[in-house]
Amino acid sequence: MNVQTIQVNVPAVEKDAYPIAIGEGIIPEVLSDVRSKRPKLRAFVVTDAAVAGAGHLHTLLGGEKVGTFVIEPAGEASKHIGTVTAIVETMEKAGLGRDTVVLALGGGTVGDIAGFAAAIFKRGVPVVQIPTTTVAQADSAIGGKTGVDSLISKNAYGVFWHPAAVYIDVRTLTTLDERQYRAGLAESVKHAAILDAEYFEWLETHAETILKRDMQVLGRLASMNCTIKASVVEEDPTEKNKRRILNYGHTIGHAVESASGYELLHGECVAIGMAAAGQIETELGLVGDNRLERIESLLKGLGLPTRIPADLPSARLIDLLRTDKKAMAGRPRFVLLERLGMALCRDGQWAHEVSEDTVRKVVKQMLDKQ
Amino acid sequence: MNVQTIQVNVPAVEKDAYPIAIGEGIIPEVLSDVRSKRPKLRAFVVTDAAVAGAGHLHTLLGGEKVGTFVIEPAGEASKHIGTVTAIVETMEKAGLGRDTVVLALGGGTVGDIAGFAAAIFKRGVPVVQIPTTTVAQADSAIGGKTGVDSLISKNAYGVFWHPAAVYIDVRTLTTLDERQYRAGLAESVKHAAILDAEYFEWLETHAETILKRDMQVLGRLASMNCTIKASVVEEDPTEKNKRRILNYGHTIGHAVESASGYELLHGECVAIGMAAAGQIETELGLVGDNRLERIESLLKGLGLPTRIPADLPSARLIDLLRTDKKAMAGRPRFVLLERLGMALCRDGQWAHEVSEDTVRKVVKQMLDKQ
Repeated sequence: MNVQTIQVNVPAVEKDAYPIAIGEGIIPEVLSDVRSKRPKLRAFVVTDAAVAGAGHLHTLLGGEKVGTFVIEPAGEASKHIGTVTAIVETMEKAGLGRDTVVLALGGGTVGDIAGFAAAIFKRGVPVVQIPTTTVAQADSAIGGKTGVDSLISKNAYGVFWHPAAVYIDVRTLTTLDERQYRAGLAESVKHAAILDAEYFEWLETHAETILKRDMQVLGRLASMNCTIKASVVEEDPTEKNKRRILNYGHTIGHAVESASGYELLHGECVAIGMAAAGQIETELGLVGDNRLERIESLLKGLGLPTRIPADLPSARLIDLLRTDKKAMAGRPRFVLLERLGMALCRDGQWAHEVSEDTVRKVVKQMLDKQ
Repeated sequence: MNVQTIQVNVPAVEKDAYPIAIGEGIIPEVLSDVRSKRPKLRAFVVTDAAVAGAGHLHTLLGGEKVGTFVIEPAGEASKHIGTVTAIVETMEKAGLGRDTVVLALGGGTVGDIAGFAAAIFKRGVPVVQIPTTTVAQADSAIGGKTGVDSLISKNAYGVFWHPAAVYIDVRTLTTLDERQYRAGLAESVKHAAILDAEYFEWLETHAETILKRDMQVLGRLASMNCTIKASVVEEDPTEKNKRRILNYGHTIGHAVESASGYELLHGECVAIGMAAAGQIETELGLVGDNRLERIESLLKGLGLPTRIPADLPSARLIDLLRTDKKAMAGRPRFVLLERLGMALCRDGQWAHEVSEDTVRKVVKQMLDKQ
């Protein structure tokens, strides 16, 4: 018998779009809005104990009976496959099938877990993201990245699953504790640093009002973040190349987060990671301006750390960098800046391999000697 | 603050294609072929104890050292999230990242598990399917369906993840035990019944040579199955509608499979399910020819069952049908025939709701009274 070849053609997938609604006090209208747009689907809410405790679940449901899964404990510790299977089994026990729409009410962890559960439930049901934290409203609720951690690395499991809609109610930020609130602002600094020098200046001049949680300013912040993030996601939805710039600060950031045993918050680690990226740029002779000073000064002004805590095990850090999902053949890759407001692109690439020696040196420099 | 809306555009995904190579004794060339086409990726093999025991893993690797995960025990019992996490953690411990290509060597279960693991590992790495059973070569290795079962239902977890390539070596079928071999032939009968009356006749005249595992005939069988399956998948890759016809025999089939505690093989249950679909057609007054007799006669000729074992708990069966993933609002849906070689389409729909009364009646009739 000769070898015969049959070709299977996978047709193109048409372009799509989803809306992000930004406002103050809009959560009570979300459920009816989702239902009016998807009348055949049954809603299922995923949230966590902290968000439910802050009253947002009650505000969303308005007394209606809707299947709900409350993640406990809130936070990164629950971001694993066990939580996903518990959510799926709860949906199955409630008799839900492919006619489900999942509403993810909460911060980045809730969005990641619920988005992933929706993506893999019966080969995918729609998810509506209702982010309630600075980090989720600026970043994680938009763009379709979902996933959970393995015992070995962050987001070891995940798929791209674009939300069907996003509702950003800036009023939810008023109940966020101060540390969480500040940590999420790191993603705003990230957006400004890689793509928008004017926005960076706006952040510098508005740092104080942002910390006071002025609703008008937070509306503007959400709008700027969503516009920037949407533009990047549109250009490269599955992160083949340019979308990697959103990982600015995240290479060392993820490793620090993991090495801290998640004692440090994601945004705090991204802040440290952005400072580290600046140090790498300095080591590589890429810096000819005061951008590192301005970035560190803005981060400090927003109450964010810029150094690796001295008690973090640096050997573990280096090890984690080698298994980072952006690594190629064991070598970690970093997003760096060309200048403030523009990420560095070399030979068409936006993520850059950096030698282990340089990484080790920078990690050593970055350890907080206090 | 007024509500502001920002639209996120998700760009179209370009059409794609993947090859299915069909031949006898081609497995020794697969590894080098995959590497020549994807030189930057590192191979990782997923197989099971039965396939490795039959010598196919050795044939694939040819003495080379390649990271491998052997699923134990072989079969449906391992088709759960725990196996997927074990595979992912093995890949992580081997230092593999997004630069991985997963080779799925085995039957339908291996393909489903390995395809799902590849799809959700670091947001997706390519998978090459190397099916070694009649069911996988006819059906499951093509079309991108992946998934694993929950404690509650079959394929509760899954995503669409098209293979990067498929290699069908019909020689692997010579090591398959008789019951597995026959069971997989049900999918060939399915393809013929829903789409190709001429192929159905060919199966009727070649049933005996097929059972003798004549290599030339098996090559023709694989080629017919792949051509039919590819045409359906191309038309509707994510099963929005017409692809549902491939679920012919699968509604009651899946329920029987589950209610039997997986004592019955998938193909055996599909055979029973096709007979059941015929009974439903009769109940609904849709039959005016001898197709049910011909289908049952061909199934019997291939050594397949056409009745539900009398000891299966029928209440559990009915219950399972309500949570079947094709169910809408708790009502199961069935693919039925217009005539032999053509599935029934009504109002543009290929899966049809059938009343619980009719389903109960047919299940009762189908119980094997012996």
